[in-house]
Amino acid sequence: MGRTILRIQQGRRLEADDWVVVEEPLEIRVEGESLAVIMRTPGHDIELAAGFALTEGVVRSVSELGTLRQCRSGPKDADSLNVVDIRLAPGASFRPETLRRNLIASAACGLCGKASLEALATQARRIGSGTRVRHEVLEALPGRLLGSQSTFERTGALHAAGIFDAAGTLRVCREDVGRHNAVDKAIGRCLLDEAGLDEAILLVSGRTSFEILQKAAVAGIPIVCAISGPTTLAIETARAFNITLINFLRGQGMNIASAAERIV
Amino acid sequence: MGRTILRIQQGRRLEADDWVVVEEPLEIRVEGESLAVIMRTPGHDIELAAGFALTEGVVRSVSELGTLRQCRSGPKDADSLNVVDIRLAPGASFRPETLRRNLIASAACGLCGKASLEALATQARRIGSGTRVRHEVLEALPGRLLGSQSTFERTGALHAAGIFDAAGTLRVCREDVGRHNAVDKAIGRCLLDEAGLDEAILLVSGRTSFEILQKAAVAGIPIVCAISGPTTLAIETARAFNITLINFLRGQGMNIASAAERIV
Repeated sequence: MGRTILRIQQGRRLEADDWVVVEEPLEIRVEGESLAVIMRTPGHDIELAAGFALTEGVVRSVSELGTLRQCRSGPKDADSLNVVDIRLAPGASFRPETLRRNLIASAACGLCGKASLEALATQARRIGSGTRVRHEVLEALPGRLLGSQSTFERTGALHAAGIFDAAGTLRVCREDVGRHNAVDKAIGRCLLDEAGLDEAILLVSGRTSFEILQKAAVAGIPIVCAISGPTTLAIETARAFNITLINFLRGQGMNIASAAERIV
Repeated sequence: MGRTILRIQQGRRLEADDWVVVEEPLEIRVEGESLAVIMRTPGHDIELAAGFALTEGVVRSVSELGTLRQCRSGPKDADSLNVVDIRLAPGASFRPETLRRNLIASAACGLCGKASLEALATQARRIGSGTRVRHEVLEALPGRLLGSQSTFERTGALHAAGIFDAAGTLRVCREDVGRHNAVDKAIGRCLLDEAGLDEAILLVSGRTSFEILQKAAVAGIPIVCAISGPTTLAIETARAFNITLINFLRGQGMNIASAAERIV
C-alpha cells in the first residue's frame, strides 16, 4: 500500500511515495467463540485460519474442518473482513479452554526447553518419512521462492514461506508480516487441497525458532529449510521429532542440524 | 551455544561446530500468578520482565514495581531460572484478567487497525516531546548499535534494540531471539535505572510492526528508528501518538513516516 513519507538522502529532503506492507488484526473464531487475534497481512485469510487450526491443535486433520467463513466483526468495520469463523465437521469436538491455555502458557507444566518438547509431544509424533532429496535440489529452492515472491522486494518487510515437493517443485508460496502466518498460510493451502505433506519441504525466508518447528512437527513436514540461522530449541525440536533441519541455505552451501540422512 | 552440525559446501560434507542462539521459555508472574510465557534468549530477564510489565500495561511507572525475583519453576528445572515473579509496590493494584484478555484478544472491541489504536489509547498518550535531533546524529546510530552487539554476527539469528539519548550516545543495547523482547529488555533497563525516556531514540535492527510502536507509545519514547521497513499499522500508530518513525536508516539515508519536525 502506498504511503507518503519524507526521504532524507545525503542531507537533502524530498517527499516520496513508498510501498508499505499492510498489517491488520485477524480474529479467529471456532464455533462463533473468539479463539485468538493475530496481526497479519490481509489475503489468504481462510488458508491462514485453516493452517492455524491445524498447527495449533484445534483440529487434527482436514476431515475435522467443516466450513470456514470470513466476515466482518461488527457494523463499525464496514471496510474490513477481519474475522474467520471456523465450524467443525459433524462429530469433531473442540474445547476452546484447552487451546486458550496453550496460547497463554504453552509450557505451564514446567518451564524449560524439555518441558516445551514434552507438551508438543501430546500433539505431534516423530516423523517417519523415508523421503530422500539431493542437495542440488535444495540449493535451487531459495531462487525459486524469491522468484515467486511479489511484495518483499518493494517493501522489505515481509516474510515468505514456500512448500515444495521432493523434486523441488514449488507447490505454494505465501508472504506475511508475521513469519508464523506465512507458514500457516502455506500449510493451510495444502490442508485445504488435501495434499499430503509427508514428502514436503518447507522453506522459510528468515530464521527458524521453536514455533516454526512446532508447526512443522504438528503438520508432519519432514524437511524444514531456512535462509538464516536456527535457535537451540529449534534444533532440539527437530531432533526430537526426526525433522531434517537445514539452515543458512545459500548458494551452494547449507548447515544440517538434524536427520541428515534424508539429504543425499 | 555450540552445536555440532553437518555442513555441505559445494557438494562436500563435513562436521562442524556452529554457534546457535539460545531460545528458552520465560514465565512472567505477577504476585505469584502466571501472566504470560514468552520464548526468549536467557539473560537480562529481570529487565525483560520490567519492560514487559510497563509496555503491556501491568504497571504504569517504575514506582508501581515492588520487587522482581528470578526463580525456578519447579524441582524438575534444576538448571534453569525460567520464571520472574513481579511483586507490586504497596498501593499498586493489578487485575490479571485485564491483561490476560489483552494478550488473547487485543482488539476484541472491533477488529480493524482503527480499533487497535483506540484500544492503545487507553494506555498511552500523544507524545508531546519537543526534542530535536540532527539527521547526521541518526545516521551514525546503526554503526554504534552494530558495534555493541556481541552475538548477532556469530549466529545470524538475534534481533537488537538500542536506546540512545538525543546526542546519539548509546545508553543500552540488548539482543534477543524475539524482536519485542529486545525492545522490552532495553526499555526495562531504563525503567530500572529510573532514566527518563522523553528525549530517547529507540533503534531496532529489523522492521517496525504495530507491537514495536505500541511499546514505544506506552513507554513514551518520541523517536523510533529501524534498519528495515514499517507496516501500515506501525505508521498509523506513530502518527496517532506523534512518534517520529524512521525506517531504512542506512548509510546517509532514511525515510521519515511521521512527526518529521523532530529531525533537523
